[in-house]
Amino acid sequence: MEKRYYPYADFLADTKILTQKIDWEFDAIIAIARGGLSLAQLLGEYYDLRAVYSINTIGYNDTQKLDDVKVFNLPQLQDAKSVLIVDDIVDSGDTLIEVLKVLNEAYPHVTFKTASLFYKKSAKIAPDWYVQEAKIWIEFFWSEDLHRL
Amino acid sequence: MEKRYYPYADFLADTKILTQKIDWEFDAIIAIARGGLSLAQLLGEYYDLRAVYSINTIGYNDTQKLDDVKVFNLPQLQDAKSVLIVDDIVDSGDTLIEVLKVLNEAYPHVTFKTASLFYKKSAKIAPDWYVQEAKIWIEFFWSEDLHRL
Repeated sequence: MEKRYYPYADFLADTKILTQKIDWEFDAIIAIARGGLSLAQLLGEYYDLRAVYSINTIGYNDTQKLDDVKVFNLPQLQDAKSVLIVDDIVDSGDTLIEVLKVLNEAYPHVTFKTASLFYKKSAKIAPDWYVQEAKIWIEFFWSEDLHRL
Repeated sequence: MEKRYYPYADFLADTKILTQKIDWEFDAIIAIARGGLSLAQLLGEYYDLRAVYSINTIGYNDTQKLDDVKVFNLPQLQDAKSVLIVDDIVDSGDTLIEVLKVLNEAYPHVTFKTASLFYKKSAKIAPDWYVQEAKIWIEFFWSEDLHRL
């Protein structure tokens, strides 16, 4: 499969573009781990938000897509009103759909919106904001750089 | 106060050194948010661990150190045995001490060890592994780069 290495410099430029697209105020950020962790950290610093949380999912493995996505480690959102959920890529959309479902059930008083760096047009759900369409496999710097050193 | 900008390239090199120092096997990583999020993502990818979690603390503000550190959003660790807690810097040590206390009380069956990129010799606790001693204020790339673009 065709691959594209995605270095830190591209991530930074795209994250900046993402901040220019997000025309919405939010009071917390949730990273879908692991993919959204660095993105959430930079956005949290940029928006001066200390309420940066993560959430975990299981459902993928490297060779086979499983139908069920289990969502766990929900953050406490009792005091939140508007929360941005971030991930590196919306691929099939299964993870994002299940994360939204679980969070909306747990916190019906919160408005959730979603942002990602990449989005595949074939996904079952589109994030509210994204930067690039993913047409080939993305090798993110956080997966590659330590091995390449 | 004297400052040092800490770019992604230095972070990557130091994270590699950290992996060479950590002579211990663990089955999960907890990032102290926000500081440890990118570090946890790179380490999770490097060690091929999907069990990458975060934990939150309140206690600092930018001008005044508060005595109390509140720890919240503990991840589920029922199935974990050995967990690495990571942060960007161990400064006063107050945060790390309280995180260890809360996690050890909640999960007495788990062995916790700690790693950071920077450590101040004046801290009340030393991480099990660290890379650099912090003598001046560190401006991490995740705080700076989006504003500089």
